[in-house]
Amino acid sequence: MTEPLRNDRFLRALRREPVDVTPVWIMRQAGRYLPEYRDTRQRAGDFLSLCKNPELACEVTLQPLDRFDLDAAILFSDILTIPDAMGLGLRFAQGEGPYFEHPVRTENEIGRLRAPDVESDLGYVMEAVRVIRKALGGRVPLIGFSGSPWTLATYMVEGGSSREFARIKAMMYDRPELVDRLVSVLAEAVTGYLAAQIRAGAQAAMIFDTWGGVLTPRAYRRFSLAPMARIVEALAADADTARAPVILFTKGGGGWLEDIAATGCAAVGLDWTVDLGAARRRIGDRVALQGNLDPAVLYASPERIREEVGALLAQYGHGPGHVFNLGHGIHQTIAPEHVKVLVDAVHELSRPYHQPGG
Amino acid sequence: MTEPLRNDRFLRALRREPVDVTPVWIMRQAGRYLPEYRDTRQRAGDFLSLCKNPELACEVTLQPLDRFDLDAAILFSDILTIPDAMGLGLRFAQGEGPYFEHPVRTENEIGRLRAPDVESDLGYVMEAVRVIRKALGGRVPLIGFSGSPWTLATYMVEGGSSREFARIKAMMYDRPELVDRLVSVLAEAVTGYLAAQIRAGAQAAMIFDTWGGVLTPRAYRRFSLAPMARIVEALAADADTARAPVILFTKGGGGWLEDIAATGCAAVGLDWTVDLGAARRRIGDRVALQGNLDPAVLYASPERIREEVGALLAQYGHGPGHVFNLGHGIHQTIAPEHVKVLVDAVHELSRPYHQPGG
Repeated sequence: MTEPLRNDRFLRALRREPVDVTPVWIMRQAGRYLPEYRDTRQRAGDFLSLCKNPELACEVTLQPLDRFDLDAAILFSDILTIPDAMGLGLRFAQGEGPYFEHPVRTENEIGRLRAPDVESDLGYVMEAVRVIRKALGGRVPLIGFSGSPWTLATYMVEGGSSREFARIKAMMYDRPELVDRLVSVLAEAVTGYLAAQIRAGAQAAMIFDTWGGVLTPRAYRRFSLAPMARIVEALAADADTARAPVILFTKGGGGWLEDIAATGCAAVGLDWTVDLGAARRRIGDRVALQGNLDPAVLYASPERIREEVGALLAQYGHGPGHVFNLGHGIHQTIAPEHVKVLVDAVHELSRPYHQPGG
Repeated sequence: MTEPLRNDRFLRALRREPVDVTPVWIMRQAGRYLPEYRDTRQRAGDFLSLCKNPELACEVTLQPLDRFDLDAAILFSDILTIPDAMGLGLRFAQGEGPYFEHPVRTENEIGRLRAPDVESDLGYVMEAVRVIRKALGGRVPLIGFSGSPWTLATYMVEGGSSREFARIKAMMYDRPELVDRLVSVLAEAVTGYLAAQIRAGAQAAMIFDTWGGVLTPRAYRRFSLAPMARIVEALAADADTARAPVILFTKGGGGWLEDIAATGCAAVGLDWTVDLGAARRRIGDRVALQGNLDPAVLYASPERIREEVGALLAQYGHGPGHVFNLGHGIHQTIAPEHVKVLVDAVHELSRPYHQPGG
């Protein structure tokens, strides 16, 4: 844990400090597009067993680092561990995504919810963080993560994935105070969860607000952004956790970048529908920016991938404060060799943008 | 056809002329949430048979007008009639949405595509327009519509609905000239299709760009907005079609409103992730705005629906140029009585915003 970090580009970029080249990592970099991941998952039996086994979670966390020159590792875990620890009974149906045995839909069910005890109920996650940090041995920093309160709430009320969010939105419009209560408990839970990950060794934390973008601007501020802001503030108020920069990522949040930056987060994640240069002009004086290549670029030929990487680096322009990433998780059918082309292109093509006086 | 229009609020609002109250219609207002629609569809046999039967298409087009005080009718048809007429073989799998028997994926397949002859290949649509206009008898105006070239292209290349758009985006990044060619043929087809609808009696035209929002800003301008702009220009250049105002609606296009308004369209459709007041400040001096209530508001109680309608009207503020609508199509499980609450609330609560000197 005290081993010095040999590659701190990612953390420097989050602090908007000079770097030699732009750091890069990839959302869902440990995942199904890698044959070695599919092997480990098969050995684990199923997805949840893989998440709950710290040694296997460590194994898949490190797999992409052995293939690609990535500048950060991200804890392998599921986005729904918190509601699972709150007693909702997370299950995965064959090929159909996650669902909860006990969704929460009534005032009583929401009223009974308590933030989990992270060490007893989510101890397997902290153990995974410790095992991964040890295995990394200072190679690159480790990112911890959580789903946002609103995003977790959608799964907890809908009972699983959703397209129209009928149940939680009906509740939000009819009984907004119930959704306030739900995201408030979840903000407390996420704060405790991320704090525990940071204490266990995570050197940065990312909040994935996958479904904030399905809200109106007003509902987004109340039910998604406000609880995220409370998490950021709570982590910053504790000397133990304040050292880990926090990245907020709302998919579809391009219209609200100023509001997101105003939370006090270190960095804002961007999906690919936002122009990176325009985003820098809007909020780049306050936060670092992470993103935002269209994940579908990785279907293209190596030459085209390099061109698109170059175009995105040019959009950001000179100077620090950019963490290269996709604008969303990598698709499952991407060829791993294309990821190598991307990662190498980021390092190679970004060097001129970091020359002194450049 | 020459019968005078008894309710021209919708057309006046599109021209940003004064109105007594804000006009309202609802995307997918003729649809599965109405029991009488489900009856007609059952009689038709299947969805395509319903679309291709002008009398039945007229019947379902008028159904919502008999229930609600709507200010416009919209042609009942499918978004994929053009590719069907181009020979792709549109089919609907039970409960799984549309697919094409012959998707286009190669240079040859794209090269062979020709814009359909609208009168022979899509005559059933023009006949439906004529039958509906006659049945309307000047009650409210009739809106014609088409999918946008990019949106049609996604279905034609993917072969059906998609989440990741892997095939068309691979093509877009690797062989952008093929996608240029595809959307160019489609722009020609959509122009001819909308022109024919207008000549047959449609008094306004709307282009649904359902999937423009999955693109980067650069790709959106090239593959979605540019072909839409060509359609708008072509319709405006012909005296026969120039009289029908055109509404462009890109779902997820909130970041690009200025670009959309610059096409010369009469109105811009907004989804619910955009603040209507902010949108008016951005482009309301050039175009009318259509939208943008979260469709999920209709799950809430009548009191809450009225409050949300009032809040949206207040966001737009005083004066003309607003066509009230949802920010996307109505969900299938909405209670019809809730739609009545919405429509009546728009008319009742908007009156003060249209007082002279108000």
